[in-house]
Amino acid sequence: MLHLKALSDARWFAQVDAHLDEVLIDHAHCEKKAAGTALNLIFHYVEDRELCREMTVIVNEELEHFHMVLELLERRGIKFRRLKPSQYGRKLHELIRKSEPERAVDRLLVAGLIEARSCERFQALANHVDDAELSEFYQSLFESEARHHTVYTQLARHFGTEEAVNCRLEELYEAEAAIISEGENPARMHS
Amino acid sequence: MLHLKALSDARWFAQVDAHLDEVLIDHAHCEKKAAGTALNLIFHYVEDRELCREMTVIVNEELEHFHMVLELLERRGIKFRRLKPSQYGRKLHELIRKSEPERAVDRLLVAGLIEARSCERFQALANHVDDAELSEFYQSLFESEARHHTVYTQLARHFGTEEAVNCRLEELYEAEAAIISEGENPARMHS
Repeated sequence: MLHLKALSDARWFAQVDAHLDEVLIDHAHCEKKAAGTALNLIFHYVEDRELCREMTVIVNEELEHFHMVLELLERRGIKFRRLKPSQYGRKLHELIRKSEPERAVDRLLVAGLIEARSCERFQALANHVDDAELSEFYQSLFESEARHHTVYTQLARHFGTEEAVNCRLEELYEAEAAIISEGENPARMHS
Repeated sequence: MLHLKALSDARWFAQVDAHLDEVLIDHAHCEKKAAGTALNLIFHYVEDRELCREMTVIVNEELEHFHMVLELLERRGIKFRRLKPSQYGRKLHELIRKSEPERAVDRLLVAGLIEARSCERFQALANHVDDAELSEFYQSLFESEARHHTVYTQLARHFGTEEAVNCRLEELYEAEAAIISEGENPARMHS
């Protein structure tokens, strides 16, 4: 699955089963955060036209997903609310190198990794939940998240050689697998 | 014009005539910033569904305008680059009250005021420039910026009474007129 080095395990599925509502609410926040990440990249690398074009598409899609999740919550009578976010994103962001252009490479690769993990979890949820609407919903999001992963990884090559980017991606895949395998509480999309 | 208390004057038109390219580049940055403002409001007031819906539309439209300006620059052979922003936005943001819900009212009213001023300047530019493409371009943006102004002003009423919001809007209109009339260098969309 998109070269991720660890798949979602029984520990996470148990969290989902026990706290599905919270995972769904967290999902809405994740879509909003993903829009914020893409817009931030426009602000930081505004001279890169292709990046600006691709990030604009992603901002629009993530906000569309955000509203889709809010509507799903509404249909299910789950009150949307603020939630303490998981530490997954913060831990990945700590790995971002501080000076450019390495910083740009890492920001894009980390954003791409989060998309890959979301993709893997959407697929896992689609197969796991005993709920046709939810399963179909996650299936429907799968494709665009996979495309986002590819866009981010390709854009990273604007800021580093193919070899340097691939080498860094490999390191980050390892780090991501360690973070997601360690897990955390409470139950979240990336816990 | 949208209750603004000062119209663009000869001082600004002289800046535009002398530095049109910079004003056009600054315009692209303004559209990007407007998208950022709308997305920030989603982050801060995420429980307000109508606000989230309206801000999503605005994010999409501002980013579309951002790309339209970039394409206009490209057609004219003007290199898009970073520019020192005008102090107009910063000065208006300094007027935002610190505690909620007044802060929300002011953030929305200030965002609406910036849209109103952009609207006034687009109209002024459309009439002023001796350039059919540019004139038509600014005319085409006018309508959506006017709509954004209305959306922001109406959303402010989610966070304060009609009377309190109108009263604050009046104060901010006065402050905005003073800031824009004072003017500044270098030439910018809101200088």
